[in-house]
Amino acid sequence: MAVFPDIVRDLTDAGRHTDIPEANKWFAKVLQYNVPTGKKYRGFALVYSYKKLVPPEQLTPENLRLAYIMGWCVEMLQAHFLVEDDIIDQSETRRGKPCWYKYNSLGLAAINDGLLLESGVYHLLRLYFRNMPYYLHTLDLFLQVTQKTILGQHLDIHSTDRNGRPKFDKFTMDRYNSIVKYKTAFYSCYLPVALAMQMAGFKDDEMYRQAKTILLEMGHFFQVQDDYLDCFGESEITGKLGSKDIEAGKCSWLAVVALQRVTPKQRALFEQCYGYKDPVKVAAVKDLYEQLGLPATYTTYEEESYNLISTQIQQISRGLPHQIFFKFLDTIYRREG
Amino acid sequence: MAVFPDIVRDLTDAGRHTDIPEANKWFAKVLQYNVPTGKKYRGFALVYSYKKLVPPEQLTPENLRLAYIMGWCVEMLQAHFLVEDDIIDQSETRRGKPCWYKYNSLGLAAINDGLLLESGVYHLLRLYFRNMPYYLHTLDLFLQVTQKTILGQHLDIHSTDRNGRPKFDKFTMDRYNSIVKYKTAFYSCYLPVALAMQMAGFKDDEMYRQAKTILLEMGHFFQVQDDYLDCFGESEITGKLGSKDIEAGKCSWLAVVALQRVTPKQRALFEQCYGYKDPVKVAAVKDLYEQLGLPATYTTYEEESYNLISTQIQQISRGLPHQIFFKFLDTIYRREG
Repeated sequence: MAVFPDIVRDLTDAGRHTDIPEANKWFAKVLQYNVPTGKKYRGFALVYSYKKLVPPEQLTPENLRLAYIMGWCVEMLQAHFLVEDDIIDQSETRRGKPCWYKYNSLGLAAINDGLLLESGVYHLLRLYFRNMPYYLHTLDLFLQVTQKTILGQHLDIHSTDRNGRPKFDKFTMDRYNSIVKYKTAFYSCYLPVALAMQMAGFKDDEMYRQAKTILLEMGHFFQVQDDYLDCFGESEITGKLGSKDIEAGKCSWLAVVALQRVTPKQRALFEQCYGYKDPVKVAAVKDLYEQLGLPATYTTYEEESYNLISTQIQQISRGLPHQIFFKFLDTIYRREG
Repeated sequence: MAVFPDIVRDLTDAGRHTDIPEANKWFAKVLQYNVPTGKKYRGFALVYSYKKLVPPEQLTPENLRLAYIMGWCVEMLQAHFLVEDDIIDQSETRRGKPCWYKYNSLGLAAINDGLLLESGVYHLLRLYFRNMPYYLHTLDLFLQVTQKTILGQHLDIHSTDRNGRPKFDKFTMDRYNSIVKYKTAFYSCYLPVALAMQMAGFKDDEMYRQAKTILLEMGHFFQVQDDYLDCFGESEITGKLGSKDIEAGKCSWLAVVALQRVTPKQRALFEQCYGYKDPVKVAAVKDLYEQLGLPATYTTYEEESYNLISTQIQQISRGLPHQIFFKFLDTIYRREG
């Protein structure tokens, strides 16, 4: 992803807004801190998909460079979401560093920096893709996926009340599925592959529909796994205790399944302990999850989900290389944190 | 602007996102509270300009309806900026009501609602203008103006330090001019007219350039006037005391001109009193402004600015009706609050 420095230059001193050098300098700082510091799953998925979708003779250095730039656009969109999310959730750290709004005690001014990252996506798209036949579709896709993510974020935020207490009556599997689909799956899974398809010249709506079905399914699994690892993953590998989701009172897969299974007495305990930072309460919730057999349920779910998605991939009929989806699947199923 | 209810319906139950009715209902609430409640200068300017730009036979009910919808898109973009601004500035009221983030103690969750409003702009553009020859230019214009506004917002926010104290060394006329141009003039003055020009089929870049020069100049005057009225306007008409800009320590036109004129002793007083809510300090700053003759300076500036802009309008050579700009000018120069 060696094009990142070029991108920063494009966004901050490419002859635009030369009368406000201070703002440009700041923009560079916001980009450096927030964009290249993640795992870059989404950017890599885009580039990988693009490589598999175009015939070898089209894999010129220039075309590959464009794919990398498009990958950074996805990463920049994600950085925008994360900067705003961290402020909304009042999180402390992100990717092992203080959240951006905590940086130099920036505080609420960081809201504007998130918006700056979002605007950078469209700046880059205009700069590099303005004359491409797929430009308009790409804009539409980014804008539509952004709206879906924000709607999902709304559902997620409003699973707790204004005092930060979970609204347990909203912890249903239907609602969980909607949150995940809107908040995570569209931008994390569908967006990178759909962009690669656009760049490779795919036009058949039915192919996008097939890809979307599978990728949203994968996005769903990815999030369930994330929720599971938050509680049971890292603690076993790293010895770290606790669970962010339990502390924050999130509408997680574990919480939803637990609420489907509890006795009235267990429910009372759950409601007393869920959504607090107190390690004793966190441990009590975790203990309840184990009593309810959630680790075994998760293992079954993981296997069934893997099989379902594999079958769906094999049924793809319209010329999309199955490799792309299997690669995605393997990246996801192998991860441990 | 009778199309607003249709717009709310389009954004919230037009067959999209039907699986998340709760989010749709919320979106409707966010729209109702934040979008139609302002003075709608920008929306009206767009519709007025459009009417003057197209030949009478093109002024069909359908075309007018599209102009109104485009006007609402500008108002919705503005609502997005204001919702985020109020959170960043920790303001209390907006348009005579509690700021949205104060509504039902929403707090930081309101950041997401601002993003929802922004996403609504592009949703409507896609819905109504997707097949128009100017669609792509319209998207570009909205996206570019958004980036400029955010850059201006950055300069504005960072005129105070992280404790909210003004950075007096940054209170220069150059910086003030940049803040106003980027934060206000592009979206408030250039955007509505440029959109009307696009809808009317204008293609000549030079015409957009001429319009931009004049409209940014007007935007500048509009903001200077706003700054003046904040301190000297309303208090005389309404008897209201105080000044939000003085209390908040804003880099306002009055503060910048004052700092150009103060003696070292007056500067010390200014720095001691500027940026505090204490009415005694606010009155001391206002008093200093009067000692420095700022009301008279403002009157001279207003007259010179009016004359300059009038001359510029008369010099427009490329078939843009002068009426549009004079109407804008008169709306601005006549206002008292």
